[in-house]
Amino acid sequence: MRTPVAIVGAGPAGLLLSHLLDLAGVESVIVEARSREYVEARIRAGILEQSTVDLLRAAGLADRLDREGDEHRGIHLQWPEERHHLDFVDLVGRSVTVYGQTEVTKDLGKARAAAGQQIHYEVTDTAVHDLETDKPYVTFTSPDGMPQRLDADIVVGCDGSFGPCRTAIPDAAKQTWERTYPYSWLGVLADVAPSTDELIYAWHPDGFAMHSMRSATVSRLYLQVPNGTDIGTWSDERIWEALATRLGHGQDGWTLTPGPITEKSVLPMRSFVQQPMRHGRLFLAGDAAHIVPPTGAKGLNLAVADVALLAPALAALLRDKDSTLADAYSDTALRRVWRCTHFSWWMTTMLHQSGDPFDRQLQLSQLRWLARSEAGRAGLAENYAGLPIGF
Amino acid sequence: MRTPVAIVGAGPAGLLLSHLLDLAGVESVIVEARSREYVEARIRAGILEQSTVDLLRAAGLADRLDREGDEHRGIHLQWPEERHHLDFVDLVGRSVTVYGQTEVTKDLGKARAAAGQQIHYEVTDTAVHDLETDKPYVTFTSPDGMPQRLDADIVVGCDGSFGPCRTAIPDAAKQTWERTYPYSWLGVLADVAPSTDELIYAWHPDGFAMHSMRSATVSRLYLQVPNGTDIGTWSDERIWEALATRLGHGQDGWTLTPGPITEKSVLPMRSFVQQPMRHGRLFLAGDAAHIVPPTGAKGLNLAVADVALLAPALAALLRDKDSTLADAYSDTALRRVWRCTHFSWWMTTMLHQSGDPFDRQLQLSQLRWLARSEAGRAGLAENYAGLPIGF
Repeated sequence: MRTPVAIVGAGPAGLLLSHLLDLAGVESVIVEARSREYVEARIRAGILEQSTVDLLRAAGLADRLDREGDEHRGIHLQWPEERHHLDFVDLVGRSVTVYGQTEVTKDLGKARAAAGQQIHYEVTDTAVHDLETDKPYVTFTSPDGMPQRLDADIVVGCDGSFGPCRTAIPDAAKQTWERTYPYSWLGVLADVAPSTDELIYAWHPDGFAMHSMRSATVSRLYLQVPNGTDIGTWSDERIWEALATRLGHGQDGWTLTPGPITEKSVLPMRSFVQQPMRHGRLFLAGDAAHIVPPTGAKGLNLAVADVALLAPALAALLRDKDSTLADAYSDTALRRVWRCTHFSWWMTTMLHQSGDPFDRQLQLSQLRWLARSEAGRAGLAENYAGLPIGF
Repeated sequence: MRTPVAIVGAGPAGLLLSHLLDLAGVESVIVEARSREYVEARIRAGILEQSTVDLLRAAGLADRLDREGDEHRGIHLQWPEERHHLDFVDLVGRSVTVYGQTEVTKDLGKARAAAGQQIHYEVTDTAVHDLETDKPYVTFTSPDGMPQRLDADIVVGCDGSFGPCRTAIPDAAKQTWERTYPYSWLGVLADVAPSTDELIYAWHPDGFAMHSMRSATVSRLYLQVPNGTDIGTWSDERIWEALATRLGHGQDGWTLTPGPITEKSVLPMRSFVQQPMRHGRLFLAGDAAHIVPPTGAKGLNLAVADVALLAPALAALLRDKDSTLADAYSDTALRRVWRCTHFSWWMTTMLHQSGDPFDRQLQLSQLRWLARSEAGRAGLAENYAGLPIGF
């Protein structure tokens, strides 16, 4: 097989890239280790930045997003003494939209299927080769056990944190940064109408809690828990009790309505960046190059921002033989990556209990300042709602 | 001896308090362990917030400050790739004034002497007693070796970090927070015109550096050095060389002019807060209750803000028997203390090398954001130029 662009990974980054390349008249082939059903069922983030929505809309991918997405003007930020609403639209003129990554992936999968995109699902042994030559290729084993070779001009790693692309770059050619946080999130999906109109970020002495949502009937809730938490020790009852305490059930007449929990998992919190995001004919996009803790809702948006830069860069390279954008890709993308990495680290360390009593006072002082300072609120808002691509 | 208000410590906090109390018709007596010459020669901070200048002016203490103080619109913030000027006046409508703490102390000393303020310098064995009764008193030994007792209605600890007042509050009645930073400042005074119009805060891979000044002919410069640095290993030549490298001598035509170094010392960096700032008839103000690292230029300003709250509170208590402000003092003062503690911690950790490579990238990302975001710059500016007293 041969294709101009071999894409490893059919998550949102890989699917969106194939879509944007197609719009630019560049063909691609995707290989993916999981099944389409698995990829589309994976529970992930649910907050789209304004620029993500704009991009999906411009690419003709937003029909259902426009119907079912829930535009939020901001977030609620609270701690036991105070509750505040941060109105991003008032502060910086941009909003965010609640629409699950799962739904984005489904929309993308449908659009790519309609366009006849070649996607090889459930492949094994994927490996990338000869990246430093102008004849790179991808090998894999198809579900029927046959070894395959996909020749390409360009290989793109959209294969996430554990895929083969990131590690195919030799150590001497890359730098990595990593931080593991001393806490995790216990996340639940519940079949109950959200008890809030917009997301609640709650600082609490017992640990951070968050009330998010996926739709008018499905709530998504999180609790800070210690690393290594055994999910078996968290009964549904205990979860709802902790959520009620940390989110302030009963305060100022606000109540949390519990409901049937349909999914429950413990998510570690990690920051990771690998640079450069290009090695020879291999480009990395999304989680393959960087992981952020979920507190800032940046993971999916950052993947979309990478692809928004990469698609025109590859189109210019392959169609017009102009390498300017491709050569600039890594540096340009990394500026936003580090911005979001910093923001995610900042939101995370401001809201989670570290166990250090001085940290706790710094957090409370910062939260009080944010609540009272327009500059403080605007700084949070412009990062949360998303800086313009290329900032 | 007997006085309504016994003040321990004749630094800027104690002197200013006696001055403001005098203006309100309340007498006080000050005891101080050091000599007047020593107190007035101590090298400390040199940046006055707008509200500090306003207060000194309103109290009739700003004649020389108005003549000799150097109003700065903002600061320079730089790292090897970029140099930026943050204009606080444009950003938040407030400026800062360069005028050494030494000068403030001299002006206060002169004003208090002219008013006949009783100050006992060079006393030893100072101790405070019966703070939980309505008859507290201070004992000390006068320079001639005679034991003395000073009875008072109120005792105020303006005796800094190592004075007897803070520790006189029983452990069960207080909470303390402390953080020691893994670096110190090597500070020098040099008889040379500053090579910059406004302060330079410089992030550098070798360590933080800062170019400040005391007057048109005296420069004040700082270098981040490891804790436990032996000052003997830093010759004047080595100091100027490190300053030139870190401050960017030769970049964009900027040059650092060296000159004779007249003072050289290593300053540890520490955050400390003790609360409450009142125990019975004892009130704490300034360094007696809180220490900030010098990066945010907050130490003196915070002491002035404490005293600005405490003077009217004590006047109301003693003159009008109204305890409202006195009862609110600790909570009100601590809000600003924690704001400045957070800001000082933030400036410090953003600008100093911690040795952690992930921290370094977070710092650079944050600096780049500050340079490009009006909200980011305004957030720094409003904290640096000083929030209104009572914020």
